[in-house]
Amino acid sequence: MSDVWLPSLITSTPQEGYELAVKMSRVAVKMTQPDPEIRAELRSVYEHDANSLILASSVVATHFQTIAKANAYWKAS
Amino acid sequence: MSDVWLPSLITSTPQEGYELAVKMSRVAVKMTQPDPEIRAELRSVYEHDANSLILASSVVATHFQTIAKANAYWKAS
Amino acid sequence: MSDVWLPSLITSTPQEGYELAVKMSRVAVKMTQPDPEIRAELRSVYEHDANSLILASSVVATHFQTIAKANAYWKAS
Amino acid sequence: MSDVWLPSLITSTPQEGYELAVKMSRVAVKMTQPDPEIRAELRSVYEHDANSLILASSVVATHFQTIAKANAYWKAS
Amino acid sequence: MSDVWLPSLITSTPQEGYELAVKMSRVAVKMTQPDPEIRAELRSVYEHDANSLILASSVVATHFQTIAKANAYWKAS
Amino acid sequence: MSDVWLPSLITSTPQEGYELAVKMSRVAVKMTQPDPEIRAELRSVYEHDANSLILASSVVATHFQTIAKANAYWKAS
Repeated sequence: MSDVWLPSLITSTPQEGYELAVKMSRVAVKMTQPDPEIRAELRSVYEHDANSLILASSVVATHFQTIAKANAYWKAS
Repeated sequence: MSDVWLPSLITSTPQEGYELAVKMSRVAVKMTQPDPEIRAELRSVYEHDANSLILASSVVATHFQTIAKANAYWKAS
Repeated sequence: MSDVWLPSLITSTPQEGYELAVKMSRVAVKMTQPDPEIRAELRSVYEHDANSLILASSVVATHFQTIAKANAYWKAS
Repeated sequence: MSDVWLPSLITSTPQEGYELAVKMSRVAVKMTQPDPEIRAELRSVYEHDANSLILASSVVATHFQTIAKANAYWKAS
Repeated sequence: MSDVWLPSLITSTPQEGYELAVKMSRVAVKMTQPDPEIRAELRSVYEHDANSLILASSVVATHFQTIAKANAYWKAS
Repeated sequence: MSDVWLPSLITSTPQEGYELAVKMSRVAVKMTQPDPEIRAELRSVYEHDANSLILASSVVATHFQTIAKANAYWKAS
């Protein structure tokens, strides 16, 4: 993964911050399982598994917490 | 999800903050599984699974921690 | 859940803060599974499941961390 | 649980703080499953389950983080 | 593990910080299971398990939170 | 466990901090399962279980976050 996918944690809105958190939670999966075909197979499994979806949401929550802090909770905006 | 669902982290009360945390924990599920019918099926499963419900509550707890910090713990109110 | 159940995060003692954390960890379950009978059935299951009980305790720990911070760790008391 | 079991988060050493974190992680289990006999049965199960023991350790880690912050990381001591 | 693998938490970019977080989440596995052959076998299992990949991503999220804080969220850069 | 195993959270390097975090994540297991023989049996199980190893790594990540904060992220070093 040599391309620049995470230049900064700063976003203009909380919603953009949330979308960045979703992206960050997926990159670790991509770095652990680089094969897109296998990831597509896995996705068709966890998309239909309530616990997997909730677990994925918990990773987003931790990354969002980091991004919100980095953006001073977007209070200036 | 192009609509604006997360304009701000600021709420007037802790209870509103808690409700926002519940909403934020569900949006990641929606972004991962966009099909409302599949989500309805999954919901009928995890609504009857103690561990799923507790896991979902843990995601709310992390988001609530972020929102509480953003609102300076509603001390001014 | 229109009643006011979370007016404030401020408590007079750490123990009260812990009890609030237990309450907050259960409300998300209630908001996800509003039916008291189903919750009673689920409770009879997870009360006898070590992992469920430990998982529930982890949710309390995250909420307690938030409440402790809100109360400046009750250092004034 | 009307007795005072959590008068303060302040301890004189990190080790005492860790012991308090272990105690706090167990109280939520006790509040959810008040029956000592059932807890003893459950304990005989999770004491022999690696994932349960690791999960329990994760609850201690979150409570310890809170207690360490409350004690300013015992830097004064 | 006598070699110096973690000289500092400071990185020049968020992306480098994320890569350090991935490395830190894997070292604990290496310290618990030092045998590279067993780790290779385990990797071929969890690379094909959605929940394992999501769980691994959650460890990266916690380490990234620590590294981001250490780098003041790379605001200076 | 009457011996002094956690005199301080202060370490001279991040790597020492990481090693302390590994130690702290294991002590809670030891306090919950004091029998070294049972722990050795359990270790032979979780050493070969990817999810257990990842879960153990998540406990290290939380303790490391606490230790890093206690050491001001070793910025002075």
